[in-house]
Amino acid sequence: MLENKSRTEISELGEFGLIDHLTKNIRLHHASTEKGAGDDAAVLDHSGRKTIVTTDLLTEGIHFDLAYVPLRHLGYKSVIVNLSDVYAMNATPTQITVSIAFSNRFSLEAIEELYSGMLLACDKYKVDLAGGDTTSSQHGLVISITALGTAAADEIAYRDGAAEGELICVSGDLGAAYMGLQILEREKQVYLENPAMQPDLQGKDYILERQLKPEARGDVLELLRALEVKPTSMIDISDGLASEILHIATRSGLGCKLFEEKIPIDPMTYESAREFNLDPTVCALSGGEDYELLFTIAQKDYEKVKNQPDISVIGHMTAKDEGCYLISKSGQVHQITAQGWDAFLKKKE
Amino acid sequence: MLENKSRTEISELGEFGLIDHLTKNIRLHHASTEKGAGDDAAVLDHSGRKTIVTTDLLTEGIHFDLAYVPLRHLGYKSVIVNLSDVYAMNATPTQITVSIAFSNRFSLEAIEELYSGMLLACDKYKVDLAGGDTTSSQHGLVISITALGTAAADEIAYRDGAAEGELICVSGDLGAAYMGLQILEREKQVYLENPAMQPDLQGKDYILERQLKPEARGDVLELLRALEVKPTSMIDISDGLASEILHIATRSGLGCKLFEEKIPIDPMTYESAREFNLDPTVCALSGGEDYELLFTIAQKDYEKVKNQPDISVIGHMTAKDEGCYLISKSGQVHQITAQGWDAFLKKKE
Repeated sequence: MLENKSRTEISELGEFGLIDHLTKNIRLHHASTEKGAGDDAAVLDHSGRKTIVTTDLLTEGIHFDLAYVPLRHLGYKSVIVNLSDVYAMNATPTQITVSIAFSNRFSLEAIEELYSGMLLACDKYKVDLAGGDTTSSQHGLVISITALGTAAADEIAYRDGAAEGELICVSGDLGAAYMGLQILEREKQVYLENPAMQPDLQGKDYILERQLKPEARGDVLELLRALEVKPTSMIDISDGLASEILHIATRSGLGCKLFEEKIPIDPMTYESAREFNLDPTVCALSGGEDYELLFTIAQKDYEKVKNQPDISVIGHMTAKDEGCYLISKSGQVHQITAQGWDAFLKKKE
Repeated sequence: MLENKSRTEISELGEFGLIDHLTKNIRLHHASTEKGAGDDAAVLDHSGRKTIVTTDLLTEGIHFDLAYVPLRHLGYKSVIVNLSDVYAMNATPTQITVSIAFSNRFSLEAIEELYSGMLLACDKYKVDLAGGDTTSSQHGLVISITALGTAAADEIAYRDGAAEGELICVSGDLGAAYMGLQILEREKQVYLENPAMQPDLQGKDYILERQLKPEARGDVLELLRALEVKPTSMIDISDGLASEILHIATRSGLGCKLFEEKIPIDPMTYESAREFNLDPTVCALSGGEDYELLFTIAQKDYEKVKNQPDISVIGHMTAKDEGCYLISKSGQVHQITAQGWDAFLKKKE
């Protein structure tokens, strides 16, 4: 991808030249960003409201594979995953800081591509890139992003706020990003075996986009406010529905019951899972990277959300001693177990 | 270093087990840390004051060499470098987030060592570890820390606040961390050539400590407040005095004049530089990693600082067209040039 373009060595600019080059196009959106990139630290004014802070670290070969992820998409997604964490507090993201480390395998043009995707996400979500660090690594690319946000004290939704009997809701649909990844992995293998083969991505746009260019669901928070529904607990789905609902249940000291037939799965996800001999429900439960919002609401709010196409009620919270279960379409009862993070089991240095 | 200890594989805990394990001993110091590690994001309440945010990314082989840096010291230092950036705004650090990525070369005990150093710094500087990310990498260790701080609006010292005629001050002494690094690098080479040789670190405690376990100069801010001196501009010395004073001069639209004889250099730094056939002043100008504070003050404040052993007045700001110069002990005039970041020139993947 990088070979066909002109290549400027980073060493021609030096650190400060690179920072100036990368930050000169930053547009600020928030009055609260009093001072952005360019000093020892950024200065923010969140007076009278709570400040939210979250951070994510992405490393090459573990979190992304540059064989099939364009750098611009990677930049976009790396911002989105952080904004999603801020939204999952029922808060509004306002600033990010971006630190990147990269080896001299990367040219200036490559880093610009990465950065352009980050700035695109900042513009779309009206978030200010307020600072960061740009440095080198011995091996590959590392991206660390910290996002700040703001919320009124009584708006914040924690993971531990659910109560027994409350309804479990999820936005959008699940499992698509995971199936997008399966397609990309398959085509990478085909390419490695025969570089002359063109990748077969035909008709898979939606699930590929869900993997390569996910969005963060700030729109769902706006919808809930418009509906006058206050989520009692909330989390974003990065590791898969199963792992996330267990977080809410454990933290809230409760059990939960999910209904398989209620879990929203897009037809393309469903068909692709079948193609790969995968159970679509398992993909939704354990796939992850959906960046949808999982939240609980009071039973009285059911009428407000029931006809919203972007919100699915998929179950309810139960007493702790009832455990956490999925009721299958055939009525069978399965215990829910987390299958989140297994990077350490899969990857060996 | 790690081979003699018991070794627990990270995979035995999984991500959430690891996070619980690492965060269970975190003590919070600030009422402003409403919610720390354990949700999608931390919640901070900095109402009525400005929030400061800064971030640093450290990668193995570039920023640290585990051949001679103990993990506990590395953890400590990685927090210090961020706190130093907050202090350099004349602000008080309040929270940090810590993201680490590491390959399966690292055991749980190793990560605990790293973390224990971070928590030691947090306790010493009364800073709350409020969240982070723990993940894997294909190669080596990556540490990304973001520090938040707070300041009243009229206290913040930017890089661009210096005025012509103001005095340039520096805290502590310079060049020691760089000489400490030279000693460690030399002993590493000796060890590589003959592993039976014991490292010769005798009598070098001060400069080794400056390299391995630096401190951030919050105490100097307290001193300035006690003296009723308000710095007009400020920066911390991470890349070397030359690079930092050029930042203040450029940003403030000024020139500067430094006097070699005024630059504070510890006798051990001086002797060690001579041993290595290095010019001690060049070490102070370009060595970096001192984490001392460089700041400007009004001329009228000279009397207040002149007898403070921890503050040296090393020059003054001039008009922009007078340029940036160092006056040597022999009266020669040298233009000041930045020799900061050359990691890209030195390291090849």
